[in-house]
Amino acid sequence: MTQKTWRVGVAGLGTVGGGLLQFLAARPDFAPAGDRAEVVAVSARSKSRPRTVDISGLEWFDDPVALASSPNVDLFVELVGGSDGPAKAAVEAALKLGKPVVTANKALIAEHGAELAALAEANNVPLLFEAAVMGGTPAVKMLREAMVGDDVVSVAGILNGTCNYILSEMEKTGRDFADVLREAQALGYAEADPTMDVGGFDAGHKITILAALAFGCAPNYEAAEIEGISEVELLDIKLAKDLGYRIKLIAGTSKTEGGVAVKVHPTLIPLEHPLAQAGGALNALFIEGTRIGRIFIQGPGAGAGPTAAAVAADIADVMTKAVRPVFQAPAGALKPFVAVDPAKSVGKAYLRIMVRDVPGAIAAISETLAECGVSIDAFLQKPVEGAGGVPIVLVTHATPESKLLDAISRIEKLQAVLERPRLLRVARS
Amino acid sequence: MTQKTWRVGVAGLGTVGGGLLQFLAARPDFAPAGDRAEVVAVSARSKSRPRTVDISGLEWFDDPVALASSPNVDLFVELVGGSDGPAKAAVEAALKLGKPVVTANKALIAEHGAELAALAEANNVPLLFEAAVMGGTPAVKMLREAMVGDDVVSVAGILNGTCNYILSEMEKTGRDFADVLREAQALGYAEADPTMDVGGFDAGHKITILAALAFGCAPNYEAAEIEGISEVELLDIKLAKDLGYRIKLIAGTSKTEGGVAVKVHPTLIPLEHPLAQAGGALNALFIEGTRIGRIFIQGPGAGAGPTAAAVAADIADVMTKAVRPVFQAPAGALKPFVAVDPAKSVGKAYLRIMVRDVPGAIAAISETLAECGVSIDAFLQKPVEGAGGVPIVLVTHATPESKLLDAISRIEKLQAVLERPRLLRVARS
Repeated sequence: MTQKTWRVGVAGLGTVGGGLLQFLAARPDFAPAGDRAEVVAVSARSKSRPRTVDISGLEWFDDPVALASSPNVDLFVELVGGSDGPAKAAVEAALKLGKPVVTANKALIAEHGAELAALAEANNVPLLFEAAVMGGTPAVKMLREAMVGDDVVSVAGILNGTCNYILSEMEKTGRDFADVLREAQALGYAEADPTMDVGGFDAGHKITILAALAFGCAPNYEAAEIEGISEVELLDIKLAKDLGYRIKLIAGTSKTEGGVAVKVHPTLIPLEHPLAQAGGALNALFIEGTRIGRIFIQGPGAGAGPTAAAVAADIADVMTKAVRPVFQAPAGALKPFVAVDPAKSVGKAYLRIMVRDVPGAIAAISETLAECGVSIDAFLQKPVEGAGGVPIVLVTHATPESKLLDAISRIEKLQAVLERPRLLRVARS
Repeated sequence: MTQKTWRVGVAGLGTVGGGLLQFLAARPDFAPAGDRAEVVAVSARSKSRPRTVDISGLEWFDDPVALASSPNVDLFVELVGGSDGPAKAAVEAALKLGKPVVTANKALIAEHGAELAALAEANNVPLLFEAAVMGGTPAVKMLREAMVGDDVVSVAGILNGTCNYILSEMEKTGRDFADVLREAQALGYAEADPTMDVGGFDAGHKITILAALAFGCAPNYEAAEIEGISEVELLDIKLAKDLGYRIKLIAGTSKTEGGVAVKVHPTLIPLEHPLAQAGGALNALFIEGTRIGRIFIQGPGAGAGPTAAAVAADIADVMTKAVRPVFQAPAGALKPFVAVDPAKSVGKAYLRIMVRDVPGAIAAISETLAECGVSIDAFLQKPVEGAGGVPIVLVTHATPESKLLDAISRIEKLQAVLERPRLLRVARS
């Protein structure tokens, strides 16, 4: 193993970029395979902004595309972010020039993964993105490499630390979503514009990538069914707990004969389930295969340290010169993404129905559910102070979504019912 | 990516070998990189033994060394087992001929890993052993590849499914070790000679391998401190639970300035800890790094399906032609293994002291502990029927092992004390 020095260009100098620069400056020889990695050039929005890392000795580029194209750069690290614009242009420029690319950009890979994979493979260079999902916890490597001797049937977990933190805090402190979000923003756990996180879109990008790795299909973010946590009420968190569940934002993908489902929903998880116990900003994931069974991984999903470590691990992987497709099959052989009809998806559900406290309300509701073919697994009626009505809460047995939506529409019209029932998904245990 | 067919030779046709043959017969093109894998030759103890897989079309070898050396075999899979003898000879023969080797043999890698790594690297071929640790759960890949951008400080977990099953059953059914072991043997969960498993040696092999991957030192099985579960009494399982703990066989390795510690001990784990909740035959592992923090993985640790899937994943890795050292550094650069002096290791401990029910017993014991500088975190005295004395149970604060052993020797000599106190390790939470 002769020693070569890879001249690394890094676009994007936020916390992850800074962490990476510090690490490579201190440990250019970190890779077991024996090559060295040295950052020679950088690019960011502002050259003069005060930074914790010294970039005075590095070549500066205002334009990440120019950085990626520089003849002094052998390996391009993209930490700019965003599905389009300079990030995509720079990654394309590097790949076209036959340079390996390492990125932490989940939006880019989820929205343009197939196209970029084709470009990388046509130029015989790796395009690696471990840091895009679960930070330092190697979900990508597991699905891309460790599960290839198995047939994955489903992947599901907690992929957004901000949402997990907010939901955990709501439960712990009894404060509502808006209140906890404001605090999370003040503490730097949530961004000024929190839409990507709390809207479920970040988790949607990540599970789209994992679906492509798990099932060998082209990533298709457009087909993902996404519901965020901004409508999750404290009332539901409390009532779910009374029923033995905790509400988590679960991103999941599964493969059936009808196609692939990619979903993000606030979901009731049985309290004793490992996903219910992953609190704070942790990420956690189940991977289920027909031969291996269920594998669970858990770790910090973000942060400068873990994410920079994942980027570094990808750089070390580039050095091994491994030749493998970007996803689970060469780009040209990726199966087209066939989405499952959501109406046909079957699962347990939680319904909260706010009723006027009048006789016959429960009877009317249960009759309607029976008519719609929805059967009940658990039931709870509990007066709640200041709830503006009495919540009737129930968990159904596994039911096709279409029947459920039919029942909800009919229940909404019942005399005693005050508003459209709240629907939340319930995980199988 | 041009398609090549790798001609695979498999030595050892137990459940894992059979599972692998079935998988490759059905899915020769499973590897994403596009090469095919075809089993062309096999070797086992008896050619005529009835098998669930048809081997009539395959070349038969009585001698695994001849199989590994056959010019018809490009890639050698070793599933014979045993640290020496034919397994080692066959692996050496394949490596010397420049053939990639995939093995599930933990004893071989733990006891001869450095030597075999040198041989593999001198011949520029991979030596892969994902299936040697945690079956289909990719602990080896995680430490070898995903953690290289971090500095691992400790690795600890449940690495032997048989022991975990026995301890789980003892707790669940209230039966003693010998009784549950007999049942496990009848059910095929434990071998006729269970020494490797219940003696902790299997877990010792596995954690020795993980230590080498985590810390870049040569694997050194001889230096491992190993205690099995055959002395774990039902009484301790019950008392530990009263104190909020569950007893698990924990294999752990950690790095300090003094060197590397590799240990296998029955250990008290706080009930709410993920390792306490990994029941039955599950395997589970924490990896802690300075940058990434703590990563947890859990999955089935054995069985034909998971283990054969891990072997297949290694075969797919061979096809990528990745060049990386066998452990965390090239064999010639592996650090010598420096063992930590066990007397200097510091940890919490559980002591069960059987006393005659006489006044002053507790006073004498607590005085002795104070004299030895051992301070107490939790204390329990509880009459237990048929226990032949009253057990006094305590959990210490973190204490150097030398002080603890001194205290135990002194307590043993106290008038009221009936036998040498039982020492068990207690995990930090």
